[in-house]
Amino acid sequence: MLSQNILNELIKIVGKENVLTSKEDLITYSFDGTADVPHILPDVVVTPTTKEQIVKIVKLASQHKIPITTRGSGTNLSGGTIPVENGIVLSMLKFDKILEIDAENLVAVVQPGLVIQRLNEAVAPYGLIYPPDPGTVTTATMGGSVSECSGGLRGLKYGVTKDYVMGLEVVMANGDIIRTGGKTVKNVSGYDLTKLFTGAEGTLGIITEITVKLIPAPKYRRSMLAIFDNIENAGKAIADIIKNQVIPATLEIMDNVTIRTVENYAKIGLPTDAAAILVIEVDGSVEQVVLNEFDTVQRICKEDGATQIKIANSDKERDSIFAARRAALPALAQVKPTTVLEDATVPRSKIPDMLKALDEIAKKYNLKIGTFGHAGDGNLHPTILTDESNTEEMERVHKAVDEIFKVALELGGTLSGEHGIGMAKAKYMELQFGKEGMAVMKKIKDALDPDGIMNPGKMFGGN
Amino acid sequence: MLSQNILNELIKIVGKENVLTSKEDLITYSFDGTADVPHILPDVVVTPTTKEQIVKIVKLASQHKIPITTRGSGTNLSGGTIPVENGIVLSMLKFDKILEIDAENLVAVVQPGLVIQRLNEAVAPYGLIYPPDPGTVTTATMGGSVSECSGGLRGLKYGVTKDYVMGLEVVMANGDIIRTGGKTVKNVSGYDLTKLFTGAEGTLGIITEITVKLIPAPKYRRSMLAIFDNIENAGKAIADIIKNQVIPATLEIMDNVTIRTVENYAKIGLPTDAAAILVIEVDGSVEQVVLNEFDTVQRICKEDGATQIKIANSDKERDSIFAARRAALPALAQVKPTTVLEDATVPRSKIPDMLKALDEIAKKYNLKIGTFGHAGDGNLHPTILTDESNTEEMERVHKAVDEIFKVALELGGTLSGEHGIGMAKAKYMELQFGKEGMAVMKKIKDALDPDGIMNPGKMFGGN
Repeated sequence: MLSQNILNELIKIVGKENVLTSKEDLITYSFDGTADVPHILPDVVVTPTTKEQIVKIVKLASQHKIPITTRGSGTNLSGGTIPVENGIVLSMLKFDKILEIDAENLVAVVQPGLVIQRLNEAVAPYGLIYPPDPGTVTTATMGGSVSECSGGLRGLKYGVTKDYVMGLEVVMANGDIIRTGGKTVKNVSGYDLTKLFTGAEGTLGIITEITVKLIPAPKYRRSMLAIFDNIENAGKAIADIIKNQVIPATLEIMDNVTIRTVENYAKIGLPTDAAAILVIEVDGSVEQVVLNEFDTVQRICKEDGATQIKIANSDKERDSIFAARRAALPALAQVKPTTVLEDATVPRSKIPDMLKALDEIAKKYNLKIGTFGHAGDGNLHPTILTDESNTEEMERVHKAVDEIFKVALELGGTLSGEHGIGMAKAKYMELQFGKEGMAVMKKIKDALDPDGIMNPGKMFGGN
Repeated sequence: MLSQNILNELIKIVGKENVLTSKEDLITYSFDGTADVPHILPDVVVTPTTKEQIVKIVKLASQHKIPITTRGSGTNLSGGTIPVENGIVLSMLKFDKILEIDAENLVAVVQPGLVIQRLNEAVAPYGLIYPPDPGTVTTATMGGSVSECSGGLRGLKYGVTKDYVMGLEVVMANGDIIRTGGKTVKNVSGYDLTKLFTGAEGTLGIITEITVKLIPAPKYRRSMLAIFDNIENAGKAIADIIKNQVIPATLEIMDNVTIRTVENYAKIGLPTDAAAILVIEVDGSVEQVVLNEFDTVQRICKEDGATQIKIANSDKERDSIFAARRAALPALAQVKPTTVLEDATVPRSKIPDMLKALDEIAKKYNLKIGTFGHAGDGNLHPTILTDESNTEEMERVHKAVDEIFKVALELGGTLSGEHGIGMAKAKYMELQFGKEGMAVMKKIKDALDPDGIMNPGKMFGGN
């Protein structure tokens, strides 16, 4: 509980209208997009409007060792913005400006509270795009997206957020402002702090400005939905497409549980007896190339045993194919009260092994798991459909989750492909990095945030 | 000077044949590819053959606070492998194996002593390439290249080394072995240590294994040489090519000093009165796209005032165009005894400003500066032709270098695009990052290498 003195100081810094302390307001900031994590109230929600205010807030927090949890739209899926140790939630939503679109250098400079889609709308007239596209692109902020290093449906061909962050301005835990990186494509001066803060989940500092790379928008695209009656064939098709050196923009998979759930939810004519569906889109700047790649993908799917291929012959048909994929999470989320969504990620060639393991884990723990995700980059989303109020089932869920992570790591994968560690996966970190790797990360954390005020309770854990 | 006891310990660890102490041998390791830096002898050169030996060496060095300068082929251009504080030079040349080529996942795992070109030769049969191509690709090692985050002629389209490093194994200053990253395209577990160690110039640990991303080799390419009678036109052509959303694989510039020197050196028929030459290559997997892009580039060069365009109609003609560009550094190096090669880098649109500033600096200090480099990514190589033994001229050289960096930073650029900071540019770091930025880097350095035994005297400085 913060003293009235400190609350008064905060009001002095940002003005009364930017400080929230009522119970109803605090509850709003006690959770984010993540299921199955505790909801913890902050003491206060502060919404700064200038960098100078942030420096003052950080200095005050540092002096009194008050935790700061920086927050954008709170769409993350790893409990990254839950204020675990109470304190200040720092809302960046008023830092929502595009500061510069430098089309000549294919660069934009934005504030962290900007919603991702706004950036894409603003650069579209220049024929440019900012490629990272997490599912929450219409609500998530750039700052949150950079802090979580979010991925999305285009990761295979276009990479993820860190591939587009060129420079940052950061307020450190001691109130210092630093600038990292810049507008140059090549830059090897000093340690790559830009990449260190990207994906650091707000545990090392507060991002106040972001310089990102833009790319020319692809002009042509072709999409299809390929249906398989066994999952191994779908896995083989994924591997064969890449082997044939076609890198689709989108290469998504849905398993039978997901297909049935989506069909039941959206009635869009999916074959409910199919073992797997692939949603594939190729794109590019030259029509003939896109058509050639599309033909190759079609041929491979047929050769690998696709029982049916539905080609989108219009934007409307394309939208309906993508609607099926986009319906996966909302559809699964309707089946049961609680949806535990994971993002264990494996090398692409291990997708069939991972799918098989997920099937076995579901049987072993008598759970309903729907799996969908970004098959092209090995980033699967096994989704356990459960009920938080059923403590016996939740115990089985937690055991299943443990096992999912173990299998992913055994297959050469990683705990998180795009959702981050946050609170939700902190306890698994040592499994992946060992004591030695965790020690290195902890040393960096302690060096830059000695009092542990920056988003405490995230990434590091061992409970 | 190391005691005989410590030398005996080292011999016990790696065997007598892997320990060098004779004066002649030590001299060989007292310099690298960099001009105008002091040559400092190590006490001993140790060439380990196993990871376990490295751990033992590091533990011994840590116990006795002996500096370790890790070295590949020593081709770097920033004094990165000069053993500033003597101690151990750790030669990684016996770690030269390719451990795995995983074509299915577009990944290779290699040891740091492997020469870059060997990797490309090994993956060629799979139709794959490892894109980073510093000028020293036939001699430089993967470990050195990762530690310096080297760039090269393909940076504009294909990025630089850090864009291809997916995972590392590192021996830390306390002897701990850690693994970072992995084979998955998406990976957001914990801090991005892979990128932190990439470009860290051996100051944070010793890299013992490298996992890199491979890409399908482009199947078609077209090359040209465009001649301009004023440098602004060449600069405009560079900007217009990118504005037209053509991203050439290579987009290189040579100024008049370089052209005249190259022609005098190689007699290949370059127009010695030209103000600038651009060497441009487009490539890709589909012939028609490559041809279209090539036409666009040609049209733009003509519109922007190219006085002549020479198209390569055969591999032989292409080689001769590239030979002109590759001759730049050796030709310039023959003019005077000392070649001070810089790599100040600016946002692409600032290239004309930078070229103008270089011209003024050359006049102001009465120096001969030839400038060539990777215009497409703003990475220029102003090269001062001088003589180390002429102390009066060297004073002017140092002033000119100071000014080059100041201008690059003022234009929104960076001290180093691809050569690294090392000894050579340590004193300029604070100009770019301020006291606050340097403090953050120093905290990371001190946290991971508290005794400062990892390549001391590099990156941090203030003399």
